[in-house]
Amino acid sequence: MKLLRHGARGAEKPGMLAADGSIRDLTGIVPDIAGATLSDAGLAELVKVDPMSLPVVPEGTRLGACVAGMSKFICIGLNYADHAAESGMDVPPEPVIFMKANSAICGPNDPIVIPRNSVKTDWEVELAVVIGSHAKYVSEADAMNHVAGYALTNDVSEREFQIERAGTWTKGKSCDNFGQIGPWLVTKDEVADPQNLSMWCDVNGKRMQDGSTKTMVYGVAHLVSYLSQFMSLLPGDVISTGTPPGVGMGMKPPTYLKAGDVVTLGIEGLGEQRQDVVAD
Amino acid sequence: MKLLRHGARGAEKPGMLAADGSIRDLTGIVPDIAGATLSDAGLAELVKVDPMSLPVVPEGTRLGACVAGMSKFICIGLNYADHAAESGMDVPPEPVIFMKANSAICGPNDPIVIPRNSVKTDWEVELAVVIGSHAKYVSEADAMNHVAGYALTNDVSEREFQIERAGTWTKGKSCDNFGQIGPWLVTKDEVADPQNLSMWCDVNGKRMQDGSTKTMVYGVAHLVSYLSQFMSLLPGDVISTGTPPGVGMGMKPPTYLKAGDVVTLGIEGLGEQRQDVVAD
Repeated sequence: MKLLRHGARGAEKPGMLAADGSIRDLTGIVPDIAGATLSDAGLAELVKVDPMSLPVVPEGTRLGACVAGMSKFICIGLNYADHAAESGMDVPPEPVIFMKANSAICGPNDPIVIPRNSVKTDWEVELAVVIGSHAKYVSEADAMNHVAGYALTNDVSEREFQIERAGTWTKGKSCDNFGQIGPWLVTKDEVADPQNLSMWCDVNGKRMQDGSTKTMVYGVAHLVSYLSQFMSLLPGDVISTGTPPGVGMGMKPPTYLKAGDVVTLGIEGLGEQRQDVVAD
Repeated sequence: MKLLRHGARGAEKPGMLAADGSIRDLTGIVPDIAGATLSDAGLAELVKVDPMSLPVVPEGTRLGACVAGMSKFICIGLNYADHAAESGMDVPPEPVIFMKANSAICGPNDPIVIPRNSVKTDWEVELAVVIGSHAKYVSEADAMNHVAGYALTNDVSEREFQIERAGTWTKGKSCDNFGQIGPWLVTKDEVADPQNLSMWCDVNGKRMQDGSTKTMVYGVAHLVSYLSQFMSLLPGDVISTGTPPGVGMGMKPPTYLKAGDVVTLGIEGLGEQRQDVVAD
């Protein structure tokens, strides 16, 4: 299934993608794409719904982030060896994690908003894992039982705020509209191998990132198990698993986004995003 | 006013403290201590309520975190010069921020849970600021207009996870039950000067931290303004403003919590917390 949320920001309704490519409304069937709906039992109920029997959502309706009610938006840093190299950093001996503010979350095609005083706003196509059920101290073998599915994310990053402004990366990762999630949550049964998905990001039609999750250092099952040793992972929590090479910071000379740019990105089987870049 | 949340974990109801020290139930008056209730208009409505006219909540009822629905729990690092020194770090040139997972949030007297494989669980008494209305790019002069009030927090920290396990501090700050908030949200009208509050933390009755917010490096108004340059602060967001000297990591030799310990802490005018330390 491809689950999504449609409608105005802050008032999104649950929906799903039908086989004919139309978006269908799940209002009244589930409260939201969140919480218990993401459990194995919740998803098993949803599978029984025939998307073609649901009301069609008008074309052009805005999509929101494909999951709601998350307690946290965890990101993994330097999780592709080539990206660590272009950032001038070593591959870490264990996963590097940081948090994005939930207030950064937005829809897949919502604009990238360059914060005031920003000169280094950058792109990062990433595979996100969506947690389906409470995970605490889970083994790597059990980890995937707690995953609902996957989504495409853009881990938009302000490099000066992130690296040159004292302290941890949070400042450069948490700006408003720095966390596009979607278009849809693809349930795990539709992703044969999360460690073999091609991924790309273009700026103004020029290919900047062209990678694959197969070069990820710490894979999905390891990350879920690892994180669950430190904290409870809850339904709807999102883990964005890091970006392959090709970010603006790694270019020679470094190249960053400016108002008027258009960013497009995608992951095999998970859909695409398109963002206008605007000034705040 | 002193606003609070009472009841079982995950099912807390809003309440307030009456002049006689009893806890009164605000069910039906406001949906929760969250969102619009925290705005100037929301608080102005609540002031009209006579606490003595409300139902009494039975003594011994559990208190939850005093605020709900936060989008983020931001913490400020190394914000007391003496604490930076005991940590072996310099006072940063601008505020150091990091994020605690919302899943770490718990009530003021809920236990401190030592995570499995932890050997360095530590205490940190802190003054928290609770945001009352959306703040973005606000000046220091305007910042306090976006503050609803203050609360006591324990920024429980696992020093090995925080410092020795690769990457940012998130791992050592986000464990379950590492964020006690309360007992109450004290509205800002009742706090004459947030930069002149005595604060303390005892372990097993022995005074470990004995400080005052007057030695804070970056004050409340500055922090709210500063953070709002990077991201929207939303009603219910909590900013924990750093800890004074006296944490376990700074002792010679370093001393950490163990199951069976009792931690008590308080800030002048904001109440007290008491936590049993238990193993996970």
